[in-house]
Amino acid sequence: GVLGSGDFARSLAVRLVCSGFKVVVGSRNPKRKASLFPAAAEVTFQAEAVKKADVIFVAIFREHYSTLCDLADVLVGKILVDVSNNTEINHHKESNAEYLASLFPACTVVKGFNVVSAWTLQSGARDGNKQVLICSNNQEAKRTVAEIAQIMGFTPVDMGCMSSACEIENIPLRLLPAWKIPIFLALGLFICFFTYNLIRQVIHPYIREQKNKLYKIPIEVVNTTLPCVSYVMLSLVYLPGVLAACSQLYYGTKYRRFPDWLDQWLQHRKQIGLLSFFCAALHAVYSLCLPMRRSHRYLLIETAVKQAVEKKMTIWVEEEVWRMEIYISVGIIALGLLSLLAITSLPSIANSLNWREFSFIQ
Amino acid sequence: GVLGSGDFARSLAVRLVCSGFKVVVGSRNPKRKASLFPAAAEVTFQAEAVKKADVIFVAIFREHYSTLCDLADVLVGKILVDVSNNTEINHHKESNAEYLASLFPACTVVKGFNVVSAWTLQSGARDGNKQVLICSNNQEAKRTVAEIAQIMGFTPVDMGCMSSACEIENIPLRLLPAWKIPIFLALGLFICFFTYNLIRQVIHPYIREQKNKLYKIPIEVVNTTLPCVSYVMLSLVYLPGVLAACSQLYYGTKYRRFPDWLDQWLQHRKQIGLLSFFCAALHAVYSLCLPMRRSHRYLLIETAVKQAVEKKMTIWVEEEVWRMEIYISVGIIALGLLSLLAITSLPSIANSLNWREFSFIQ
Amino acid sequence: GVLGSGDFARSLAVRLVCSGFKVVVGSRNPKRKASLFPAAAEVTFQAEAVKKADVIFVAIFREHYSTLCDLADVLVGKILVDVSNNTEINHHKESNAEYLASLFPACTVVKGFNVVSAWTLQSGARDGNKQVLICSNNQEAKRTVAEIAQIMGFTPVDMGCMSSACEIENIPLRLLPAWKIPIFLALGLFICFFTYNLIRQVIHPYIREQKNKLYKIPIEVVNTTLPCVSYVMLSLVYLPGVLAACSQLYYGTKYRRFPDWLDQWLQHRKQIGLLSFFCAALHAVYSLCLPMRRSHRYLLIETAVKQAVEKKMTIWVEEEVWRMEIYISVGIIALGLLSLLAITSLPSIANSLNWREFSFIQ
Repeated sequence: GVLGSGDFARSLAVRLVCSGFKVVVGSRNPKRKASLFPAAAEVTFQAEAVKKADVIFVAIFREHYSTLCDLADVLVGKILVDVSNNTEINHHKESNAEYLASLFPACTVVKGFNVVSAWTLQSGARDGNKQVLICSNNQEAKRTVAEIAQIMGFTPVDMGCMSSACEIENIPLRLLPAWKIPIFLALGLFICFFTYNLIRQVIHPYIREQKNKLYKIPIEVVNTTLPCVSYVMLSLVYLPGVLAACSQLYYGTKYRRFPDWLDQWLQHRKQIGLLSFFCAALHAVYSLCLPMRRSHRYLLIETAVKQAVEKKMTIWVEEEVWRMEIYISVGIIALGLLSLLAITSLPSIANSLNWREFSFIQ
Repeated sequence: GVLGSGDFARSLAVRLVCSGFKVVVGSRNPKRKASLFPAAAEVTFQAEAVKKADVIFVAIFREHYSTLCDLADVLVGKILVDVSNNTEINHHKESNAEYLASLFPACTVVKGFNVVSAWTLQSGARDGNKQVLICSNNQEAKRTVAEIAQIMGFTPVDMGCMSSACEIENIPLRLLPAWKIPIFLALGLFICFFTYNLIRQVIHPYIREQKNKLYKIPIEVVNTTLPCVSYVMLSLVYLPGVLAACSQLYYGTKYRRFPDWLDQWLQHRKQIGLLSFFCAALHAVYSLCLPMRRSHRYLLIETAVKQAVEKKMTIWVEEEVWRMEIYISVGIIALGLLSLLAITSLPSIANSLNWREFSFIQ
Repeated sequence: GVLGSGDFARSLAVRLVCSGFKVVVGSRNPKRKASLFPAAAEVTFQAEAVKKADVIFVAIFREHYSTLCDLADVLVGKILVDVSNNTEINHHKESNAEYLASLFPACTVVKGFNVVSAWTLQSGARDGNKQVLICSNNQEAKRTVAEIAQIMGFTPVDMGCMSSACEIENIPLRLLPAWKIPIFLALGLFICFFTYNLIRQVIHPYIREQKNKLYKIPIEVVNTTLPCVSYVMLSLVYLPGVLAACSQLYYGTKYRRFPDWLDQWLQHRKQIGLLSFFCAALHAVYSLCLPMRRSHRYLLIETAVKQAVEKKMTIWVEEEVWRMEIYISVGIIALGLLSLLAITSLPSIANSLNWREFSFIQ
């Protein structure tokens, strides 16, 4: 059974019919809505639909849950599947599913299918994320809904008791939560190092020698800033592991929980490392662009002209030559190794490595 | 039961035996063929094999389906699994499975396993695509075959009624269908812009000033063409979304189907976007190669010599310097953002994002 | 039932409880250990735990298997799941699971769950590799354990009879086995070509003309070595296919096994190809860095000064210009094509291609 006639209810009905289920749709205005649903689904009044179905998908907004109270009698003993989502994280005190359960204590409520979009339901589960997170206090009901999800082509994932409902409802609303702290960290570091390099390379020569080096800001100053950010971020990837080991040695046990800040830090290592790689890659591209610039060309020609006018035939400085050759080759090797780390962090590659291989590469 | 003794029949028998099924193989010449099959599989005459089995895999070519007509009596009530493929798309009017069903109306025909190769069957489903697309008009038979697929280690995907058989049979024959239009589009754009740039940078100076600039063709002309193609392609990614929104506003509903050309266009956006990124990345590599060229070196030295002979000590043009610095830094940032888009289009990364995160990045 | 109280036993109990199973833990010191397990799991003496459970996870080290012999009577008829791992590949003659089976001939032993880490068990199977490889001589027991794995959120993979146990136990210990030969091959080739180029570009000019070109070692010599390695590796990718075809033509059959060396070679093609791409990519980066070097700058200025002093206004050599333009553009196209090959070798992309598409791209 499906209660509701919105986008999601429709897609759900289509998918259930395609998977071979008998579907009955409950609507307050069955005649007008019938045309929206597939022909194989029976569209009728809510009370009748509920009577005919054992598992009922409640595809209506939380605000309208109370309108179902008239059906309380016929709903007794049925499994209600709450598929609703919120528009804001932690908008209500209790999750939608818990609210539904409190309205209908005689029903078994299962939270599920909210992480699946109407579009995924219609286009079938062949592409994209096929996980359906399910939670309920009743193991039997949970297993029934999990089986329905499996027959519909999804991968049910058991998320435990009803208290997880809040977490499940927040999933479609989260916005790259693991990236927020690392990105602000990288931005903060960038601003600090950029200011320092701006003063050192542009403002200081201007004040001391009245030389106008403003043209260095877009490329050269950014290019000396990026590797600093990259280095600090890379060290922040390996530091918490050392701190964690020290903490374990100090307390003499590995079963003591780490303090919260260390735990958070340990969990953000992958994102910090990827941002470090991103900065290093940008630094490589900026460096490669240096000889393309007009300023590079002009400085070269001016030096050549000066040398020619003074008839100095040689300009070779062995030490400078060697320094640059070594800088560049070490830089390339470092970038190659960082690329390897970045590639192994792709989910499809990380999954094909066992723990020993992963730690070997790291 | 397996009918046939080709590569696929053999691999199927091996896999079924390994998964714990009792397998009986039907062959017209059981003695000669027995050595090809695993010892645990019983190889016997077709009629006998059919009698012993409930589910029969028909692993013979469509052309030989009619040879099974002698078995029509013993086949009554059995489930026939059509695993055949065609050599050409839409070679026959009706799909192989529908043809088989029309030959044996007393049997239940299920289409399946044709997207799996003999090699995947033998090597096990641990790597690679594990989906087995199944369709049939009989829900019971479909579920039986889906269970067999699951026990064999594959992921059965329900494709609905027998009318999908044609689509399923075409899958192993398709050749990057979603890429054809975008690739021809990119090629067409490339040719247009290349011709324009060739006339402008090579032919025009040759006719007007008799200057031989032919050496510019392989790199400089290509390099000015690529970003034009990239820009146009990128705008073609975002344009159909705008048109779709306009169409929805105009008709006042989002349930009206878009015209076919717009629908096609909307579905090709990802491919167009990736080609746009490919052109942008090529443009970056070409640009980075510019200072490596002999022509760049010669022009630089000639300018320097000319300046030295005329004793002009300075050549610095502030505006030119700034223009180039800004070009390059904006180019790098644009490439960085496009790379991010390209990375999130990798299937394993796209699957780990929810809808809100995906649209935020886009 | 779970026997043992280590990390893995604990994580297993947590996960089983979360998935809705009734768990009883057998320990030699239940009072002291009870606090380590979730409250919902009953912790008791080993003999009692075994009596209450039908499926028993043996989460203790192989060395302590013999301590279970006291329980032989109560264990009769139970399913024992061996989850153990070794510390070395092929450390013992027979696999742990076969050893356990020999100790308790009246039990059914199933090997499984050893490829899953304690951490994966605790954090749930939502990320990472979810495969659980299972093998046993008893189909019924295997299916029971596979169902448990499925309810726990893992993907059970049937690996056949008990004789596969050894292979399964070696999986967590393997260290990129497919990469060893290709990496040593690449290193060997690199050393050979590097020595040749070192003699040619540095030692020979030093001996013949007393010119010090040592500065060329870190970048220029490496940069001429990398494409040689890349070419040889690329040819080694396509050669074994040709040899295999010849062998099939010679013997007139495709069912004859290839000799072992050819089989090995064919299986390493992907790794050899990726190393070839890695060398080509490094070569591209090294080449792009050439104009950034001080030595490049000094040589350029010295040439300009020499020309200016001699008042030679032109230095243009048409042939040299064309050679370089063509080198670079062919190089970029080759790198673009190799990148395409490398991208299609990513697991998540390779899985979305059918066989025809894959061979078309190759």
